[in-house]
Amino acid sequence: MRDELRPGERPLALPSGFDAGLYFIGRIRTPWRDRSECPKNARGSDAVCTVEVEPRYAEALTGVEAASHLILLYWMDRARRDLAIQVPRHHERPRGTFSVRSPVRPNPVALSVVQLIGRDGTSLKVVGLDCLDGTPLLDIKPYLPSVDSRPEAMMAPPAL
Amino acid sequence: MRDELRPGERPLALPSGFDAGLYFIGRIRTPWRDRSECPKNARGSDAVCTVEVEPRYAEALTGVEAASHLILLYWMDRARRDLAIQVPRHHERPRGTFSVRSPVRPNPVALSVVQLIGRDGTSLKVVGLDCLDGTPLLDIKPYLPSVDSRPEAMMAPPAL
Repeated sequence: MRDELRPGERPLALPSGFDAGLYFIGRIRTPWRDRSECPKNARGSDAVCTVEVEPRYAEALTGVEAASHLILLYWMDRARRDLAIQVPRHHERPRGTFSVRSPVRPNPVALSVVQLIGRDGTSLKVVGLDCLDGTPLLDIKPYLPSVDSRPEAMMAPPAL
Repeated sequence: MRDELRPGERPLALPSGFDAGLYFIGRIRTPWRDRSECPKNARGSDAVCTVEVEPRYAEALTGVEAASHLILLYWMDRARRDLAIQVPRHHERPRGTFSVRSPVRPNPVALSVVQLIGRDGTSLKVVGLDCLDGTPLLDIKPYLPSVDSRPEAMMAPPAL
């Protein structure tokens, strides 16, 4: 967790308390032990990673292998949460927090679309992650191209 | 929140405490006041909905309109969290919780890909939601087709 502000970054005042609570339902095992080792984005690596789901949720995995691709939600537990304007690692310029996919955000819930390679009990082999080894898992959803795939989406150059 | 189990549903034992906390960063305004009115899925309606972000996060919206599409994460606050096997409204058969997109899950974080129509201060007009009016907002991310769009994804028929 970094505490110092980079040039151009601006903090915001978070509320004094939380509104809802999360359970960590498992852990993600990846080859990357330090943020500097992580791929720049999820398409930057073909590494097969392992999603280890806690045994209490075993039955909830029934039928998960019907999906070729999954959406994983996970918790970026090392990220600060109080920046309105930030300078992410791979951008030169300050950006609004909700205009980037950086882990730094009020609720550091990350999502990745992964290809499901196989399942062994409560362990899933997937391709398409870029997070640190040990990252807490929050949810597993089937990827539905009818609602989730929007190949026509575009990003204009940022005008800050 | 429904308490009774439908035939075929199976509960799980949730942990005794939470592992992390969430802030509600705004509210989603939709035309639907009751779950029976909601479209079956996010492609089921062309309704323009409004995302009202709390003023404390205003600056974090800087540049958000560069994206034609956004990913919204929101909190399904009326859903029970303790089902391993469930019978969702639009399925006839019991399904594993992580094999469906139902709001019923240990962490009821829903995600929708929406088209951004316009922004007026902290208010965003979007198309592509199917949630109840007043649903708490958790996060706004730009949709990046390079990592988020997987038109080749497939769902096999469930084999339960």
